[in-house]
Amino acid sequence: MELGDLRRHHLSLVVEALAAEGPRSRAELAQGIGLTKATVSALVADLVDRGLVAEREARREGRMGRPGIDLELRSAHIGALGLEIRVDEVAACVVDLAGTVRSLHRRSGDNRRARPATVVDRLLGVARSALDDAAAQDVRSIGGALAVPGLVTTDGDALVVSPNLDWHEVVPSSLGAELGLELPVENEANLAALAELRHGVGRDLASFVLVSAGVGVGGALVLDRSLVRGFHGFACEVGHVVVDPSGPRCACGARGCLEAVVGRAADASPAVVADALGSALRSVVHLVDPEAVVLGGRLAEVPGLVAALAERLAVDTLGGRTHPCEVRTSTLGLDAALIGAATATLDDVVADPTTIPTAETSADDQQSA
Amino acid sequence: MELGDLRRHHLSLVVEALAAEGPRSRAELAQGIGLTKATVSALVADLVDRGLVAEREARREGRMGRPGIDLELRSAHIGALGLEIRVDEVAACVVDLAGTVRSLHRRSGDNRRARPATVVDRLLGVARSALDDAAAQDVRSIGGALAVPGLVTTDGDALVVSPNLDWHEVVPSSLGAELGLELPVENEANLAALAELRHGVGRDLASFVLVSAGVGVGGALVLDRSLVRGFHGFACEVGHVVVDPSGPRCACGARGCLEAVVGRAADASPAVVADALGSALRSVVHLVDPEAVVLGGRLAEVPGLVAALAERLAVDTLGGRTHPCEVRTSTLGLDAALIGAATATLDDVVADPTTIPTAETSADDQQSA
Repeated sequence: MELGDLRRHHLSLVVEALAAEGPRSRAELAQGIGLTKATVSALVADLVDRGLVAEREARREGRMGRPGIDLELRSAHIGALGLEIRVDEVAACVVDLAGTVRSLHRRSGDNRRARPATVVDRLLGVARSALDDAAAQDVRSIGGALAVPGLVTTDGDALVVSPNLDWHEVVPSSLGAELGLELPVENEANLAALAELRHGVGRDLASFVLVSAGVGVGGALVLDRSLVRGFHGFACEVGHVVVDPSGPRCACGARGCLEAVVGRAADASPAVVADALGSALRSVVHLVDPEAVVLGGRLAEVPGLVAALAERLAVDTLGGRTHPCEVRTSTLGLDAALIGAATATLDDVVADPTTIPTAETSADDQQSA
Repeated sequence: MELGDLRRHHLSLVVEALAAEGPRSRAELAQGIGLTKATVSALVADLVDRGLVAEREARREGRMGRPGIDLELRSAHIGALGLEIRVDEVAACVVDLAGTVRSLHRRSGDNRRARPATVVDRLLGVARSALDDAAAQDVRSIGGALAVPGLVTTDGDALVVSPNLDWHEVVPSSLGAELGLELPVENEANLAALAELRHGVGRDLASFVLVSAGVGVGGALVLDRSLVRGFHGFACEVGHVVVDPSGPRCACGARGCLEAVVGRAADASPAVVADALGSALRSVVHLVDPEAVVLGGRLAEVPGLVAALAERLAVDTLGGRTHPCEVRTSTLGLDAALIGAATATLDDVVADPTTIPTAETSADDQQSA
């Protein structure tokens, strides 16, 4: 481990300790983490400089004498921007380090066949509104991510392939540049799964497959509490599992994909959805053997679907009778991916607090701008 | 890390260094691993006592003076037993630490609907032959594993559910007891994938899905160079991916599984196999996005199948045109699972050399026996 890596790791340990256990003194932090008080003091000074940590006077019950100094995460003042391109709207939110959604804006508009530049203009509008709202509440947004309803390649540029948007496009880097933020692009179902894993139905699951449906059908795979992105970043496209090889032509070019069979899932009859989804989930369970299947998006709202799928999987899978796969619904609802985009960014900040510039660096940036 | 764990870890480092770099002196080992020479000497004494390591006189070119003492792994003298229940035969082999197959015995016999006790008797026969052959070559077998063509639960007893054997049975622990070896039971495709990962086509792959076919169709999933077993140990049952929901009834109870559609894969026409397998693999690639699909068992021998599947996947999957999934064939052939059963055991020994008893413990065992 390089010296810089070690320092980042130590900074991360301090942030994690404050996030998990609340305000502490330097001495308590040093004891808890197993570092010297001098080292912890230097780490804390760095984190204060980056605006992540603040001092406060601590008057604790039962303590005699002068009040001590506790350190606390500035959880309500550090946030991240979540952006999402949906088929019929764009959305932006700012979530703070405590996990609270501080602002959320949506703008309707058909993004199908729209040129990426047009969609990016719409996004810029809601992003600025969300950031301004958060700034007015004294929340500083230190990064963000963009959720898209399609495949995103992981090998360089953000190439987005989305049959539902009729897209095969590169998202322009002008979006992040205009906002002054790094804005990685990620599949919406992956981000929804991250949000569920951290804050939702996945908190107690070792592994799960998230299946969500709106206009298309998306999915994400979590194994050993980590997101599986696949070798090319395309894993868990549940919408393109074959359920009827002689079925209707899918937007992807093949026949009988789950997505093509259920059509616009929100409008399909519950019986059709249950039948096609049950067939696709049989394949999913036989391939991945997750602890649970989680229904997200509009699927979470279909009456009786959880029970119908659970029964189907218990009867129609090899291990189902003795070791059934659970079926649950999302607890974060339709904004899971949007919240996940911000959550992913905040996770990165906790893992490496040096991604936030120090006060001095920020001032330099402003002078040179 | 507990003290015992640390010692096991250090013993493993010494074995790995000797396996990767060949014979070394104690001083060279100490320098390479970053431990003191005294610590390495104590570790080596332990490994010599367990029969894993031996001293030899080293006369190296260019060295002056007295010959030194090198240490070497007794790779040709430590082995493990691989056992396999196939539908129409049982097989046993002993593989040594160098990866060489030292003995291999098969016995024909229909194991379908046979009682487990009957199959165990057949296994005992070939196992004793393989162990005796190896012992005659001065190979000591320190453990083993049993490959079965079905689901194996990971939560206690080895419950095997195998529609192809028409089994839903517990493998009697008498098998291991009779042979005086620990004999964990594992799905055959998982073991075949381990063998390919270590010694075969998977050596340079980050992730792959192995699909093999004989009487049934099995599979295994390797992600980040680790086997994915699933939450219940049932992952990657490719044979039960749905390819035609109105197709023939499968042994598992459902309709239109890949296995039911291709029937006895060895006898199916190549066109039928390619069509059904292509459909199932579309679902696999969309769900897991592996670097490659590896065809094992008799599938590796079907003419033109690799090219047909590669074309199908390139055209019919979302990312296939820009980021195609490779299709390769197994390099270990029909005995991959059998060899994998021994390989898995030897991997465990390298990871924790204390699983081999010391000379003293062995002598005690023999006296008390």
